[in-house]
Amino acid sequence: MASSDQTISAALERLAAIVSENVDQLVDAFYSTFLVHEEASAYLSHSVVNQRLRYSLRQWLLDLVGKDMRSDTSGFEQRQIKIGEVHARLRVPNDIVMEGMTLLKTEIARRVSALGLDAATTAETIILLGESIDFAMRYMTEAYVSDTRSRAQTDEAFRLFSLGQDINLERETQRAALMEWSQSVLFSLLGEKSEKPGNMLSSSPFGLWVRHRAAVLFQGSTILGGIEDLIRQIDQQTIPAISDRGPAAISDLQRRVDEIKYLLNDLFQTAANLENGRDPLTRTLNRRFLPSILGREISLAKSAGSPFALLMVDVDHFKTINDTYGHSAGDAVLGCVAEHLLGAVGSSDYVFRYGGEEFLIALVETDRTEAHIIAERIRQGIAAQRPVVSETRRVDITASIGVASFEGHPDYQYMINAADKALYRAKQEGRNRVCMAPDGSSGAAAPEALVNNYG
Amino acid sequence: MASSDQTISAALERLAAIVSENVDQLVDAFYSTFLVHEEASAYLSHSVVNQRLRYSLRQWLLDLVGKDMRSDTSGFEQRQIKIGEVHARLRVPNDIVMEGMTLLKTEIARRVSALGLDAATTAETIILLGESIDFAMRYMTEAYVSDTRSRAQTDEAFRLFSLGQDINLERETQRAALMEWSQSVLFSLLGEKSEKPGNMLSSSPFGLWVRHRAAVLFQGSTILGGIEDLIRQIDQQTIPAISDRGPAAISDLQRRVDEIKYLLNDLFQTAANLENGRDPLTRTLNRRFLPSILGREISLAKSAGSPFALLMVDVDHFKTINDTYGHSAGDAVLGCVAEHLLGAVGSSDYVFRYGGEEFLIALVETDRTEAHIIAERIRQGIAAQRPVVSETRRVDITASIGVASFEGHPDYQYMINAADKALYRAKQEGRNRVCMAPDGSSGAAAPEALVNNYG
Repeated sequence: MASSDQTISAALERLAAIVSENVDQLVDAFYSTFLVHEEASAYLSHSVVNQRLRYSLRQWLLDLVGKDMRSDTSGFEQRQIKIGEVHARLRVPNDIVMEGMTLLKTEIARRVSALGLDAATTAETIILLGESIDFAMRYMTEAYVSDTRSRAQTDEAFRLFSLGQDINLERETQRAALMEWSQSVLFSLLGEKSEKPGNMLSSSPFGLWVRHRAAVLFQGSTILGGIEDLIRQIDQQTIPAISDRGPAAISDLQRRVDEIKYLLNDLFQTAANLENGRDPLTRTLNRRFLPSILGREISLAKSAGSPFALLMVDVDHFKTINDTYGHSAGDAVLGCVAEHLLGAVGSSDYVFRYGGEEFLIALVETDRTEAHIIAERIRQGIAAQRPVVSETRRVDITASIGVASFEGHPDYQYMINAADKALYRAKQEGRNRVCMAPDGSSGAAAPEALVNNYG
Repeated sequence: MASSDQTISAALERLAAIVSENVDQLVDAFYSTFLVHEEASAYLSHSVVNQRLRYSLRQWLLDLVGKDMRSDTSGFEQRQIKIGEVHARLRVPNDIVMEGMTLLKTEIARRVSALGLDAATTAETIILLGESIDFAMRYMTEAYVSDTRSRAQTDEAFRLFSLGQDINLERETQRAALMEWSQSVLFSLLGEKSEKPGNMLSSSPFGLWVRHRAAVLFQGSTILGGIEDLIRQIDQQTIPAISDRGPAAISDLQRRVDEIKYLLNDLFQTAANLENGRDPLTRTLNRRFLPSILGREISLAKSAGSPFALLMVDVDHFKTINDTYGHSAGDAVLGCVAEHLLGAVGSSDYVFRYGGEEFLIALVETDRTEAHIIAERIRQGIAAQRPVVSETRRVDITASIGVASFEGHPDYQYMINAADKALYRAKQEGRNRVCMAPDGSSGAAAPEALVNNYG
């Protein structure tokens, strides 16, 4: 029951008439809803924006139902892309725009319904309206997403650039800035009676740094939240009370400043650990890069039709070694296994520390057969190691390995699960062995595993 | 003409009946369209995905019109968020999903239209359908965008981590890998007649590195594209011809390998320059961080209600200095001005190299009056400098400064434009002076400047 060109033209003309007759009312309806919308009003409250957006929305509505959109689709598409980019730059959330679009559809559809046409014509007109607005929204969203992605990359590059500057110097500079502020408070207390205690901590150079720099460097850190709380407490409780020069307030100040110093150290320390791309013990890759690397390699394999394989390697009886000879023995074993793995793979392959004694290896352009051969060689290589666990002792070690090859499924988590299950079988069957995941066809038996459990 | 609860319930029941009676047909319509859709079919072609998604889409349709959505909105929202996250992980473009939603709306609306209801009831039912699907799509998109953003951050962190590894070692390793490959080709030519020429360059360690590592490190580089072209030429033209042991083919190989070596050097060199967060000459920030920093500072100023100001600083008669005393004199002037600027601002402020002889300064938590005082101090400070431009000569320099303060407009480009216009006035009025942008109220005169021209 597709519509003919004639029905479409007639419907378009109806929509054009409704929109142009009601354009100011539609713009009003849009803004009256959005100015009370908590999130949206933040973007629309400025008079220039408001004035500009009312004008733009008016033009956009007329464009939507204009002849131009039909005859010059690509011009219309370009205009939607431009709008999506502006929204991304202004950080106007796309979902607010989508909400506005739904509202406009409903407003216009109600007016179509009131025309008194027959049911079929009414329905066709409303369907066309929905399709047109959705078409525009699709281009806006696509531009918004791609702009948001590149902005996120630049933000991260800036954050890492800032962290890459002399971070020890930064720490000492800010410790000094904090001390300078607390000293100025103390001097003002000991000096002329008329002199008021110094500025608030939050507006001192240290306070500005916390708000403007540290918030970028240590994005979302809970320690930073703790420092901000202490600054607030000092400004709102300690400083007002100190005017009475009560000794209790002074020691309260000292305690809180010391606490900030302590947290500041912690903040820099934690960041240094987190930013490591490699696991410090084994020198293998940090698993936070798994999504980036596997996502990309799977796209490549899919588009180039090239093979790709994962090995999940787990050290056998690791807990027993740890319990018998202590943690440093365990560390020595992990270090020895990791060194072997890093030497056994090619320069374009990846070795991750996946869990405690578990490593994940991504073998690029490697098919099932080759992956099995490499896994077997790795298993034998590990079994030949006898790492030194104390001055007088070496231990025998072995590892179990699960192998999965890329079978066309776009979700890397699906491949990891397959390698994990194969590893589990290797363990069950007596350890020190390699097991292959079943190939693609049998994997289809458990589709419900796809969406769940993995983030 | 809002709908009553009763009309909504009746419309919902109608939709529930249509969807549950036609659910398999709807799923079929969705897939028959999308399996021929070039972009979408890449994601749907795998049998496991296809099977899983058909099942999911079926459940989703029933969920959409189920009682649950009305009584447990937050459960429904959570399910949409989960779906959006899965799409982001699988890299299924959100606009394909949106296209599918429009299709489903149209399919269901046509069936509503065929029920033979009156026009008003038909319209209300289709409107409700649109609102419900749009509601779901909004949550999916929001989750998709936020997941895409954090994935982009991790991708960038991985890229920069990889670049931060010993990049000189990487360059030498890959030069050696390329040499090793070309040597193996030559040896096979000089050796036993029966021996075939070596592997293809594209499947050698060097070729793998280009495809899997370099593509991450040097994202989108045109030089990398050039290397890939040469690899293709060697594998498809040079190597097949070489079997005849024609000397022409040998020198062709040498020429192309040399060209790759040259491009490889270039690639690493260009990357080293690009990745600089600071301008090498002036040590001020690279302007590619402008959107990250100004976007963030404007959000902060907006939400905290704190002031924020920009100074646009331009060295007067710079071209004349450059033309009279040469480029190194110009560089000395820029270095001197930059040093003065970096020393004149607080530790939480930002100084960018904005253009040739233009600097942009972002002053956090600084209002109009303070910004004017700082700008004036900077102007006087620069006028007091007499940079050394040659062994025997110093020059007098001055600068013009435009100042703009944050007036609530969410677009940082708007503030930059305002500072730029003020700078232009300072130049017009005779240079070596500070001009303020008019405050917010008069800025409203030219709203059309908002959207245009700036990326």
